[in-house]
Amino acid sequence: MAETADVVVVGGGVIGTAIGWRAATAGLDVVLVDPARGDGASLVAAGMLAPVSEALFGEGALLRVNLLAVGRFGSFAAELEGVTGQQVGVRREGTMAIAYDPGDYAALIRLTAFRRAAGLDAQELDSRACRQLEGFLTPDVHGGVLFAGDWSVDNRRYAAALREAAAAAGVRFVRDQVSQVLVHHGRATGVRLADSGEAGTRPAGGGAGPDISAGAVVVAAGCWSGALAGLPDPLRAAVRPVKGQLLRLRHPAGMAPVISHTIRATVRGADVYLVPRADGEVIVGATQEERGPDRTVTAGAVHDLLHDAMSVLPVTSELILAETCVGLRPGTPDNGPIVGGTGIDGLLLATGHYRNGILMSPVTADAIVAYLTGQPPAAEWEPFTPGRFLPAPAPAESTSEGAR
Amino acid sequence: MAETADVVVVGGGVIGTAIGWRAATAGLDVVLVDPARGDGASLVAAGMLAPVSEALFGEGALLRVNLLAVGRFGSFAAELEGVTGQQVGVRREGTMAIAYDPGDYAALIRLTAFRRAAGLDAQELDSRACRQLEGFLTPDVHGGVLFAGDWSVDNRRYAAALREAAAAAGVRFVRDQVSQVLVHHGRATGVRLADSGEAGTRPAGGGAGPDISAGAVVVAAGCWSGALAGLPDPLRAAVRPVKGQLLRLRHPAGMAPVISHTIRATVRGADVYLVPRADGEVIVGATQEERGPDRTVTAGAVHDLLHDAMSVLPVTSELILAETCVGLRPGTPDNGPIVGGTGIDGLLLATGHYRNGILMSPVTADAIVAYLTGQPPAAEWEPFTPGRFLPAPAPAESTSEGAR
Repeated sequence: MAETADVVVVGGGVIGTAIGWRAATAGLDVVLVDPARGDGASLVAAGMLAPVSEALFGEGALLRVNLLAVGRFGSFAAELEGVTGQQVGVRREGTMAIAYDPGDYAALIRLTAFRRAAGLDAQELDSRACRQLEGFLTPDVHGGVLFAGDWSVDNRRYAAALREAAAAAGVRFVRDQVSQVLVHHGRATGVRLADSGEAGTRPAGGGAGPDISAGAVVVAAGCWSGALAGLPDPLRAAVRPVKGQLLRLRHPAGMAPVISHTIRATVRGADVYLVPRADGEVIVGATQEERGPDRTVTAGAVHDLLHDAMSVLPVTSELILAETCVGLRPGTPDNGPIVGGTGIDGLLLATGHYRNGILMSPVTADAIVAYLTGQPPAAEWEPFTPGRFLPAPAPAESTSEGAR
Repeated sequence: MAETADVVVVGGGVIGTAIGWRAATAGLDVVLVDPARGDGASLVAAGMLAPVSEALFGEGALLRVNLLAVGRFGSFAAELEGVTGQQVGVRREGTMAIAYDPGDYAALIRLTAFRRAAGLDAQELDSRACRQLEGFLTPDVHGGVLFAGDWSVDNRRYAAALREAAAAAGVRFVRDQVSQVLVHHGRATGVRLADSGEAGTRPAGGGAGPDISAGAVVVAAGCWSGALAGLPDPLRAAVRPVKGQLLRLRHPAGMAPVISHTIRATVRGADVYLVPRADGEVIVGATQEERGPDRTVTAGAVHDLLHDAMSVLPVTSELILAETCVGLRPGTPDNGPIVGGTGIDGLLLATGHYRNGILMSPVTADAIVAYLTGQPPAAEWEPFTPGRFLPAPAPAESTSEGAR
């Protein structure tokens, strides 16, 4: 006899786990399947909650959904901390955007004007003002802008708290890989497991079969969502991995924190960020590389990240290089997330969050739970439904391999 | 009843293990004690067998013992490979010393003349000749010198083979830390264990007591030799840790080896080396830092090593950063090793090998086994006995805490 649930969530990163938690809290019976290889992008992220410094010209729709996400994050994190009793390390000091030379500064000021037009707080700083806020910045800094509304969160603490909250709310975790979404007569009916999970990780009372039956399937498998059989081909093709390399630095014993703000610097056109953690870590990131599924740490990337960080904050050289990390972000053709129905009844997609998965996890969970419970999601999501990648309102039969 | 042996060797790096192997082969009953924390300098070394490129003006005695060591290494490694059936990765392509700018080149040519005067082979190369031998070198290289006699060995394979050979020859390994050398009436009588070893790692048939009795004690504990109670204080003070940070790079799948020679480069006065391994690794090293027992990997050191390596071999940026390593070399006031008797009967010292521990391990083992069996060691060792750090031919009573 197969395992059954109201909802099966495919993927245990922050997106899938947030969905699982909120769906269970809404009264649904949820199973979450993840192979738990520990290689998800959620564990590699820097945790910047920064719609402002990420906002790009011409991406107004993305800015709006990011602003929705920033507005939601505080209450979501507070509820998460309340439920679990864990601190997730939200820092509210803001982000200092730093320009190394006059060319970098001119680009920063153009971007600042755009952000102000979107109603965001931004305070221009000359070189001296920059160093009054962050004493270890190089005197060579040309100038900067303080974005007081940009927060950050400790991504690993946040992911761990989400998992604890989901488990407490009754989400059952299955450690396995989903090989296929099962579709029958144009309707998702569950998932097939690869059965690679360890013995004993199946839900208590579950059957021996490799299938989980569910009324709804939510695919939140990050860049691996595209590898999932049963998902319509145009959606599978819309998700690609974008490699990011990132460093975790630590302070040596006895050294006071070298920064208190997130620093985003442009060093002669190259971007680097440094994100301080409450526990003394400093995250330095990140590359953006189109290298398929490659997850190697390269000498050149580590060099360039350290070089750029040391250019703006020379004291970085004294920090301990504690960890080199690689993550694969789920990228999409228009850089926007893919959240909503897939044209197959009961099959929802929540991926493509690219560089903003941590930030968008609360509002993505809200949107998916709205779909699952028959409510309308927030209007900001309208431009980001899977439908934009589907050729036409396809009849379910034509996209379902389960249909006969 | 205490464990007993002819010889107890303190330290399981390449020096101690080579001594153990050769002593057992000479018919002695040997116990080797090491806590096996895996943090020894032997496992971090680059494995360069290079008296030539290490030779410094004014260190003629050190050059002579290094030349003795180079002459011995080949037959020692061949015997080791024969006994164990393992390949230890000796590479005989030679070392290319590279000068980045005219100032670096002038310094290299002065050193080359000195080496030639010592009878060593050296062939000057212009920039084009350098790139004919190593096609990935930057065209900015000013010139270089090929030292055909410089070999290298895979330090980790070498250490593993030594251990296997020692065990096969009957050396008994005890996984524990020695807290003290026992001295009675001016004569070493054994060692006291900290008893931190795991159950079951004592030699079969050994007693429960924390002491090992032996006719001779050989201290080969690298930079930790100075921490050993029972050793005369002036000798303890003569050994200090010199921190070295080093990187292990790997080729991505499908990439042909980027170098075949060891490359030693001087980049505007800063030294960096790249040592290729048969299995596709490239070792990049190394810092020399007076930081006491600190073993942290620092952002600045990793940056500088990568920067200097990429300056001479830009393709380094494409390699995988597989491992960042830190080792503590045993340094001495005159940069020479300390090998021989300590003024306490039956207590021998073999440490202070600084940057040449791998290279000197065979001849150090030969010298210590000569002492143990009543033979004279090679004359090249005469300047490197412990006596040079002792104030006078001290009576045993005055330096032995066991004497009453």
